[in-house]
Amino acid sequence: MGKTLKLTPIGVIHSSYTDPADIHPLRSRFTKGTIEIFQEYTKGLKDIEGFSHIYVLWHFHLSERVDLLTSPLMELKPKRGTFATRTPHRPNHIGLTVVRLVKRSKNILHVKGVDMVEGTPVLDIKPYTRRDRRSHIRLGWLEEVERRER
Amino acid sequence: MGKTLKLTPIGVIHSSYTDPADIHPLRSRFTKGTIEIFQEYTKGLKDIEGFSHIYVLWHFHLSERVDLLTSPLMELKPKRGTFATRTPHRPNHIGLTVVRLVKRSKNILHVKGVDMVEGTPVLDIKPYTRRDRRSHIRLGWLEEVERRER
Repeated sequence: MGKTLKLTPIGVIHSSYTDPADIHPLRSRFTKGTIEIFQEYTKGLKDIEGFSHIYVLWHFHLSERVDLLTSPLMELKPKRGTFATRTPHRPNHIGLTVVRLVKRSKNILHVKGVDMVEGTPVLDIKPYTRRDRRSHIRLGWLEEVERRER
Repeated sequence: MGKTLKLTPIGVIHSSYTDPADIHPLRSRFTKGTIEIFQEYTKGLKDIEGFSHIYVLWHFHLSERVDLLTSPLMELKPKRGTFATRTPHRPNHIGLTVVRLVKRSKNILHVKGVDMVEGTPVLDIKPYTRRDRRSHIRLGWLEEVERRER
Protein backbone atom coordinates (compact mmCIF):
# COMPACT_ATOMS: atom_id res chain seq x y z
CA MET A 1 0.00 0.00 0.00
CA GLY A 2 2.20 2.93 -1.00
CA LYS A 3 5.89 3.34 -1.61
CA THR A 4 8.45 3.36 1.19
CA LEU A 5 10.44 6.55 1.62
CA LYS A 6 13.79 7.04 3.30
CA LEU A 7 14.60 9.91 5.62
CA THR A 8 17.93 11.10 6.97
CA PRO A 9 18.17 13.26 10.11
CA ILE A 10 19.24 16.89 9.55
CA GLY A 11 20.16 17.48 13.18
CA VAL A 12 19.81 16.43 16.79
CA ILE A 13 18.03 17.71 19.93
CA HIS A 14 20.00 18.61 23.06
CA SER A 15 17.74 18.37 26.06
CA SER A 16 17.98 17.98 29.83
CA TYR A 17 15.56 15.05 29.53
CA THR A 18 17.08 11.62 29.13
CA ASP A 19 14.00 9.56 29.99
CA PRO A 20 10.72 10.10 28.10
CA ALA A 21 8.85 9.30 31.33
CA ASP A 22 10.12 12.61 32.80
CA ILE A 23 8.50 14.72 30.09
CA HIS A 24 5.24 16.30 31.21
CA PRO A 25 3.14 17.69 28.34
CA LEU A 26 2.31 20.93 30.19
CA ARG A 27 5.52 21.57 32.11
CA SER A 28 7.71 21.01 29.04
CA ARG A 29 6.21 24.10 27.42
CA PHE A 30 8.83 26.09 29.35
CA THR A 31 11.74 23.65 29.04
CA LYS A 32 14.79 25.08 27.29
CA GLY A 33 17.04 23.17 24.96
CA THR A 34 18.96 23.48 21.72
CA ILE A 35 18.60 22.06 18.24
CA GLU A 36 21.90 21.32 16.54
CA ILE A 37 21.47 21.37 12.77
CA PHE A 38 24.23 19.43 11.04
CA GLN A 39 26.67 21.81 9.34
CA GLU A 40 25.87 20.64 5.83
CA TYR A 41 22.35 22.10 6.33
CA THR A 42 23.29 25.39 8.05
CA LYS A 43 22.63 27.42 4.89
CA GLY A 44 18.97 26.38 5.04
CA LEU A 45 18.57 28.23 8.37
CA LYS A 46 18.96 31.66 6.76
CA ASP A 47 16.06 33.98 7.79
CA ILE A 48 14.80 31.56 10.47
CA GLU A 49 15.58 34.10 13.24
CA GLY A 50 12.73 36.29 11.97
CA PHE A 51 10.21 33.76 13.25
CA SER A 52 9.20 33.61 16.90
CA HIS A 53 7.95 30.02 16.68
CA ILE A 54 9.01 27.03 14.61
CA TYR A 55 7.84 23.49 14.05
CA VAL A 56 10.27 20.70 14.80
CA LEU A 57 9.60 17.36 13.09
CA TRP A 58 11.53 14.62 14.78
CA HIS A 59 11.89 10.89 15.15
CA PHE A 60 10.51 8.95 18.13
CA HIS A 61 13.71 6.94 17.96
CA LEU A 62 13.18 5.16 21.29
CA SER A 63 9.84 3.64 20.32
CA GLU A 64 10.06 0.16 18.93
CA ARG A 65 6.40 -0.60 18.53
CA VAL A 66 3.28 0.57 16.74
CA ASP A 67 -0.08 0.63 18.52
CA LEU A 68 -3.33 1.59 16.81
CA LEU A 69 -5.10 2.00 20.16
CA THR A 70 -3.31 3.58 23.10
CA SER A 71 -3.73 4.75 26.70
CA PRO A 72 -2.62 8.37 26.77
CA LEU A 73 -0.57 9.55 29.77
CA MET A 74 -3.41 11.28 31.58
CA GLU A 75 -5.98 8.51 31.60
CA LEU A 76 -5.91 4.77 31.36
CA LYS A 77 -9.38 3.85 30.04
CA PRO A 78 -10.85 3.70 27.52
CA LYS A 79 -8.07 3.34 24.99
CA ARG A 80 -7.98 6.04 22.32
CA GLY A 81 -7.22 5.78 18.63
CA THR A 82 -3.53 6.49 18.07
CA PHE A 83 -4.22 9.20 15.46
CA ALA A 84 -6.34 11.00 18.10
CA THR A 85 -3.28 11.15 20.41
CA ARG A 86 0.35 12.25 20.25
CA THR A 87 1.71 8.88 21.43
CA PRO A 88 5.22 7.85 20.27
CA HIS A 89 3.99 4.35 19.43
CA ARG A 90 2.50 5.35 16.08
CA PRO A 91 2.96 4.36 12.44
CA ASN A 92 6.09 6.08 11.10
CA HIS A 93 7.11 7.34 14.57
CA ILE A 94 7.21 11.03 13.64
CA GLY A 95 7.00 13.61 16.43
CA LEU A 96 5.86 17.21 16.00
CA THR A 97 6.44 20.10 18.42
CA VAL A 98 5.93 23.85 18.21
CA VAL A 99 8.81 25.57 20.02
CA ARG A 100 9.65 29.20 20.70
CA LEU A 101 12.83 30.24 18.88
CA VAL A 102 14.82 32.29 21.38
CA LYS A 103 18.10 32.74 19.55
CA ARG A 104 20.15 31.36 16.69
CA SER A 105 23.93 30.94 16.87
CA LYS A 106 25.11 29.65 13.48
CA ASN A 107 23.82 26.06 13.28
CA ILE A 108 22.45 26.01 16.84
CA LEU A 109 18.84 27.01 17.59
CA HIS A 110 18.12 27.92 21.21
CA VAL A 111 14.48 27.06 21.86
CA LYS A 112 11.84 26.87 24.58
CA GLY A 113 9.21 24.15 24.71
CA VAL A 114 11.36 21.04 24.40
CA ASP A 115 9.48 17.77 24.92
CA MET A 116 12.09 15.50 23.38
CA VAL A 117 14.94 13.59 25.02
CA GLU A 118 18.65 14.24 24.52
CA GLY A 119 19.82 12.82 21.21
CA THR A 120 16.48 12.87 19.41
CA PRO A 121 16.99 12.96 15.61
CA VAL A 122 15.53 16.02 13.85
CA LEU A 123 13.88 15.54 10.44
CA ASP A 124 12.72 19.04 9.49
CA ILE A 125 12.27 22.62 10.72
CA LYS A 126 9.41 24.79 9.43
CA PRO A 127 8.27 28.32 10.29
CA TYR A 128 5.03 28.61 12.29
CA THR A 129 2.72 30.89 10.30
CA ARG A 130 -0.72 32.47 10.56
CA ARG A 131 -2.31 29.46 8.87
CA ASP A 132 -1.12 27.30 11.77
CA ARG A 133 -3.00 29.39 14.35
CA ARG A 134 -6.53 28.07 14.63
CA SER A 135 -9.27 29.38 16.88
CA HIS A 136 -12.54 27.80 18.07
CA ILE A 137 -10.89 24.43 18.39
CA ARG A 138 -12.62 21.34 19.77
CA LEU A 139 -10.43 18.86 21.62
CA GLY A 140 -12.50 15.68 21.92
CA TRP A 141 -11.40 13.33 24.70
CA LEU A 142 -8.75 15.82 25.87
CA GLU A 143 -11.49 18.25 26.91
CA GLU A 144 -13.14 15.58 29.02
CA VAL A 145 -9.82 14.92 30.77
CA GLU A 146 -9.26 18.63 31.40
CA ARG A 147 -12.78 19.02 32.81
CA ARG A 148 -12.22 16.13 35.17
CA GLU A 149 -8.88 17.52 36.41
CA ARG A 150 -10.22 21.00 37.20
CA MET B 1 25.38 11.90 10.14
CA GLY B 2 22.45 10.04 11.69
CA LYS B 3 20.65 6.83 10.84
CA THR B 4 18.29 6.53 7.88
CA LEU B 5 14.68 5.74 8.69
CA LYS B 6 12.05 4.20 6.48
CA LEU B 7 8.47 5.42 6.29
CA THR B 8 5.42 3.80 4.72
CA PRO B 9 2.34 5.83 3.78
CA ILE B 10 -0.78 5.23 5.92
CA GLY B 11 -3.16 6.79 3.41
CA VAL B 12 -3.65 9.09 0.45
CA ILE B 13 -5.12 12.55 -0.22
CA HIS B 14 -8.01 13.03 -2.62
CA SER B 15 -7.98 16.58 -3.90
CA SER B 16 -9.32 18.60 -6.80
CA TYR B 17 -5.77 19.87 -7.39
CA THR B 18 -3.64 17.90 -9.80
CA ASP B 19 -0.93 20.51 -10.37
CA PRO B 20 0.95 22.02 -7.41
CA ALA B 21 1.12 25.32 -9.35
CA ASP B 22 -2.66 25.72 -8.87
CA ILE B 23 -2.43 25.67 -5.08
CA HIS B 24 -2.62 29.14 -3.55
CA PRO B 25 -1.53 29.27 0.11
CA LEU B 26 -4.44 31.53 1.14
CA ARG B 27 -7.24 30.28 -1.10
CA SER B 28 -6.56 26.63 -0.24
CA ARG B 29 -7.62 27.30 3.34
CA PHE B 30 -11.19 26.73 2.15
CA THR B 31 -10.53 23.88 -0.29
CA LYS B 32 -12.35 20.67 0.52
CA GLY B 33 -10.97 17.20 0.03
CA THR B 34 -10.78 13.79 1.66
CA ILE B 35 -8.09 11.76 3.35
CA GLU B 36 -8.36 8.05 2.71
CA ILE B 37 -6.66 6.11 5.49
CA PHE B 38 -5.73 2.60 4.38
CA GLN B 39 -8.04 0.04 5.98
CA GLU B 40 -5.30 -1.63 8.01
CA TYR B 41 -4.97 1.65 9.99
CA THR B 42 -8.71 2.46 10.40
CA LYS B 43 -8.69 1.38 14.07
CA GLY B 44 -6.22 4.19 14.82
CA LEU B 45 -8.86 6.79 13.82
CA LYS B 46 -11.08 6.02 16.85
CA ASP B 47 -11.96 9.28 18.71
CA ILE B 48 -10.56 11.52 15.93
CA GLU B 49 -14.03 12.96 15.24
CA GLY B 50 -13.91 14.77 18.60
CA PHE B 51 -11.26 17.12 17.23
CA SER B 52 -12.15 20.10 15.05
CA HIS B 53 -8.66 20.38 13.54
CA ILE B 54 -5.98 17.85 12.74
CA TYR B 55 -2.43 17.87 11.48
CA VAL B 56 -1.70 16.00 8.28
CA LEU B 57 1.92 14.97 7.71
CA TRP B 58 2.47 14.05 4.11
CA HIS B 59 5.08 13.40 1.45
CA PHE B 60 6.03 16.00 -1.18
CA HIS B 61 6.16 13.07 -3.60
CA LEU B 62 6.45 15.23 -6.74
CA SER B 63 9.60 17.01 -5.63
CA GLU B 64 12.79 15.46 -6.86
CA ARG B 65 15.28 17.96 -5.54
CA VAL B 66 16.55 19.52 -2.33
CA ASP B 67 17.35 23.23 -2.16
CA LEU B 68 18.82 24.89 0.92
CA LEU B 69 17.95 28.36 -0.40
CA THR B 70 14.67 28.99 -2.18
CA SER B 71 12.48 31.66 -3.78
CA PRO B 72 9.08 31.39 -2.09
CA LEU B 73 5.98 31.77 -4.27
CA MET B 74 5.23 35.33 -3.31
CA GLU B 75 8.57 36.93 -3.95
CA LEU B 76 11.57 36.15 -6.07
CA LYS B 77 14.44 37.92 -4.33
CA PRO B 78 16.31 37.55 -2.08
CA LYS B 79 16.33 33.79 -1.69
CA ARG B 80 15.27 32.55 1.73
CA GLY B 81 16.63 29.69 3.81
CA THR B 82 14.56 26.58 3.10
CA PHE B 83 13.83 25.96 6.80
CA ALA B 84 12.34 29.48 6.96
CA THR B 85 9.84 28.51 4.20
CA ARG B 86 7.33 25.74 3.49
CA THR B 87 8.85 24.86 0.10
CA PRO B 88 8.49 21.26 -1.16
CA HIS B 89 12.15 21.16 -2.19
CA ARG B 90 13.44 20.47 1.32
CA PRO B 91 15.49 17.77 3.01
CA ASN B 92 13.23 14.77 3.70
CA HIS B 93 10.33 16.27 1.67
CA ILE B 94 7.78 16.21 4.49
CA GLY B 95 4.72 18.45 4.22
CA LEU B 96 2.61 19.63 7.16
CA THR B 97 -0.91 21.07 7.00
CA VAL B 98 -3.53 21.94 9.61
CA VAL B 99 -6.97 21.04 8.23
CA ARG B 100 -10.47 21.35 9.62
CA LEU B 101 -12.04 17.94 10.19
CA VAL B 102 -15.60 18.19 8.89
CA LYS B 103 -16.75 14.59 9.09
CA ARG B 104 -15.46 11.05 9.37
CA SER B 105 -16.96 8.13 7.45
CA LYS B 106 -15.13 4.97 8.53
CA ASN B 107 -11.63 5.30 7.02
CA ILE B 108 -12.41 8.52 5.11
CA LEU B 109 -11.81 11.95 6.67
CA HIS B 110 -13.66 14.84 5.03
CA VAL B 111 -11.54 17.94 5.55
CA LYS B 112 -11.26 21.61 4.66
CA GLY B 113 -7.95 23.34 3.99
CA VAL B 114 -6.40 20.98 1.46
CA ASP B 115 -3.17 22.25 -0.10
CA MET B 116 -2.00 18.93 -1.48
CA VAL B 117 -2.50 17.41 -4.93
CA GLU B 118 -4.55 14.30 -5.72
CA GLY B 119 -2.64 11.15 -4.77
CA THR B 120 -0.38 12.71 -2.13
CA PRO B 121 0.87 10.03 0.30
CA VAL B 122 -0.11 10.60 3.95
CA LEU B 123 2.42 9.75 6.67
CA ASP B 124 0.63 10.62 9.91
CA ILE B 125 -2.47 12.26 11.41
CA LYS B 126 -2.31 14.06 14.77
CA PRO B 127 -4.88 16.02 16.78
CA TYR B 128 -4.41 19.80 16.90
CA THR B 129 -4.29 20.76 20.60
CA ARG B 130 -4.02 23.85 22.79
CA ARG B 131 -0.22 23.60 22.77
CA ASP B 132 -0.28 24.09 19.00
CA ARG B 133 -2.07 27.44 19.25
CA ARG B 134 0.49 30.17 19.71
CA SER B 135 -0.17 33.87 20.08
CA HIS B 136 2.12 36.89 19.67
CA ILE B 137 3.85 35.29 16.72
CA ARG B 138 6.51 37.00 14.63
CA LEU B 139 6.69 36.00 10.96
CA GLY B 140 10.01 37.34 9.67
CA TRP B 141 10.19 37.79 5.88
CA LEU B 142 6.52 36.79 5.52
CA GLU B 143 5.48 39.93 7.40
CA GLU B 144 7.48 42.09 5.01
CA VAL B 145 5.72 40.45 2.04
CA GLU B 146 2.29 40.95 3.63
CA ARG B 147 3.05 44.61 4.35
CA ARG B 148 4.09 45.15 0.75
CA GLU B 149 0.93 43.47 -0.62
CA ARG B 150 -1.45 45.56 1.47
